[in-house]
Amino acid sequence: MEYNISEKMKNLKPSAIREIFKSLSDPSIISFSGGNPAPETFPIDEIAAISADIYAKDGAAALQYNISEGYPPLREAVETRLRDKFGIGGEGDSLIIVSGGSQGIELAAKVLCNDGDAVICEDPTFIGALNAFRTNGAKTIGVPAAGGIDPDALEAAIIAHPEAKMVYLIPNFHNPMGTTMPFEKRVAIYEICKKHSILIFEDNPYGELRFAGEDVPSIKSIDKDGIVIYCSTFSKILSAGMRVGYVCAPSALTQKMVVCKQVEDVHTNTFFQMVCHRYMTELDMDAHIRSIREIYRHKCSLMLSCLDDMMPKSVTYTRPEGGLFIWCTLPDNIPCDGVVKAALERKVAVVPGTAFNCDEHAPSPSFRLNYSMPSDDQIKRGVEALSDAVRAVLK
Amino acid sequence: MEYNISEKMKNLKPSAIREIFKSLSDPSIISFSGGNPAPETFPIDEIAAISADIYAKDGAAALQYNISEGYPPLREAVETRLRDKFGIGGEGDSLIIVSGGSQGIELAAKVLCNDGDAVICEDPTFIGALNAFRTNGAKTIGVPAAGGIDPDALEAAIIAHPEAKMVYLIPNFHNPMGTTMPFEKRVAIYEICKKHSILIFEDNPYGELRFAGEDVPSIKSIDKDGIVIYCSTFSKILSAGMRVGYVCAPSALTQKMVVCKQVEDVHTNTFFQMVCHRYMTELDMDAHIRSIREIYRHKCSLMLSCLDDMMPKSVTYTRPEGGLFIWCTLPDNIPCDGVVKAALERKVAVVPGTAFNCDEHAPSPSFRLNYSMPSDDQIKRGVEALSDAVRAVLK
Repeated sequence: MEYNISEKMKNLKPSAIREIFKSLSDPSIISFSGGNPAPETFPIDEIAAISADIYAKDGAAALQYNISEGYPPLREAVETRLRDKFGIGGEGDSLIIVSGGSQGIELAAKVLCNDGDAVICEDPTFIGALNAFRTNGAKTIGVPAAGGIDPDALEAAIIAHPEAKMVYLIPNFHNPMGTTMPFEKRVAIYEICKKHSILIFEDNPYGELRFAGEDVPSIKSIDKDGIVIYCSTFSKILSAGMRVGYVCAPSALTQKMVVCKQVEDVHTNTFFQMVCHRYMTELDMDAHIRSIREIYRHKCSLMLSCLDDMMPKSVTYTRPEGGLFIWCTLPDNIPCDGVVKAALERKVAVVPGTAFNCDEHAPSPSFRLNYSMPSDDQIKRGVEALSDAVRAVLK
Repeated sequence: MEYNISEKMKNLKPSAIREIFKSLSDPSIISFSGGNPAPETFPIDEIAAISADIYAKDGAAALQYNISEGYPPLREAVETRLRDKFGIGGEGDSLIIVSGGSQGIELAAKVLCNDGDAVICEDPTFIGALNAFRTNGAKTIGVPAAGGIDPDALEAAIIAHPEAKMVYLIPNFHNPMGTTMPFEKRVAIYEICKKHSILIFEDNPYGELRFAGEDVPSIKSIDKDGIVIYCSTFSKILSAGMRVGYVCAPSALTQKMVVCKQVEDVHTNTFFQMVCHRYMTELDMDAHIRSIREIYRHKCSLMLSCLDDMMPKSVTYTRPEGGLFIWCTLPDNIPCDGVVKAALERKVAVVPGTAFNCDEHAPSPSFRLNYSMPSDDQIKRGVEALSDAVRAVLK
């Protein structure tokens, strides 16, 4: 039998990160390549206690089908938190629960994009988003974003690509770059998108993980025109494996996203929606988030000080104020492949920058480091080996 | 702001069943319209005990990201069961975990269908499957299936529609019809599809719920040519709300489906994959399934005997050997709408047959009854009111 794969799926490759994750069964390899939250940030005992109580009091409902929009008490709790804490969600907006932030991106792409349409992205950006756009037949138009996307360049791209339906942005602790977009730039981009009637998808999976600097208001919080789709998740706060995220967007869009979600998985796991709701309303989630920030503050500053001590000075890297990632760039536009290979020979895995390029075939002088998963000892030994790999390549 | 919804989503309506489910907040309405498993079939205490043990021994892993293919021990346990118990899964096949059977259908459609392609379906069929095909740009070609699809009619449809990529079938306890396809017909259809090199999607969510008659081997169990995609789920056995299903199909297809799944939700809820694995390997799942069959045997025969006693004789209905649904048909091709409305006025909700039609605008003389959710008393009172509604319409 010959299998005729659809055009949109034919050329799609598995995410480099997921594939690297699979290859990390070798315990001697130090992985800076994951995107997993630190397991010590999961409040296991609290979730176990809540779970036992749910089974005791509400077991049948927790194991039964629920509505595609999401478990109503959780929707309400998240709506309240977004409104009161972050000024997110206006009159025309509504909130739906999705199976992790990734599903939010994918549903938006499916609802908005026809074959041949485009999504404008920071370049580099999150590989999962790029693949979501591609599997829905949309091209990905990259606007260079080292150190933050330039509003004028973005406007030029919007004008050059009338087929673009959406601008995809990760303003806080960008994946893969670790950078944060200043407020003035958020406002400028919002005004440009408003002027050209193009939607913004604001992806904010890491926003609560700030361990330095000052909070910057989200683009959604200044949205008075119904042009911003805001997406976030519990993955980096309570549990990544439970797959619970949410989207706050104009109701005209969330209504269509719900129909689409119904088709994909009917609804998000009911039990863990109840767990999230109970955690939010009965425990001190903000205190828990503060404890996560302390863990990442420590890990990030350790990795940065190791890089400061050991990495050749010609290599540059970002100094994140939150999130999970540091972005390293080799001098003179040297492609990263040699370093990635040399690092793996020294038992350190990093993700090549090419994985995050809007143009899949473009080279990249950069690679991504994750500090949330490795131990302190692994960070020290890993940066040492990685620095050695860089020196070997740069000679 | 004006929102331009994509062509494939523009005309898609929410599933009538999900919408009815939402409207059932009125407790005075007797619902025969759901598709939910009976809540008393969920082994809540056993799942609670397993859950507590997972948190105690493996909490961090259970709350962490996992691979898109599914939790490896669960994949292995399901593979073993399918092979040893049902003769399913050959050398070229592999098994992946999906977020409920619906995701399996949707992924197959996405991997196989381009805009303008088609999927051939029994008509009527599962609304979620129809929407999965439509949202992936595929037309749905219906082959009349009252009392089981006719192989010659199927072959004629395949010949008339070279753009068809797949034949979608629910051979066991069909949704909505409750019918089961005899083995000879399965073989005949397999041979036809093989001859024309078209794939079969065998959807089997209810297969384990047989309470009468003899098991019929699945089409997948006779697949020696790699043309059958087999899909099933834990939804009707352990919990519908946890969203855990699986697909066994030629590896060339599951590999693409995994990439697609990565984009949609990264992976299925890790914790409940572990719950399923532990339940399968540490408890007697077959004994549990036998207990569910007893519950449904009772409920189905009660509803049938109420229909026998109270429904006008001109109305016909199927006599299922398993599953969740009975399919009633009015005489003389009278459209069902009047009865659906008259029943709702009498506080009984049923699903109009039109919801399951491949041609969304075609009328239907049929409606679907569910017996898994209502209590014995509700079944009796509901069938009485429904029969009264039918009499009022037939006059």
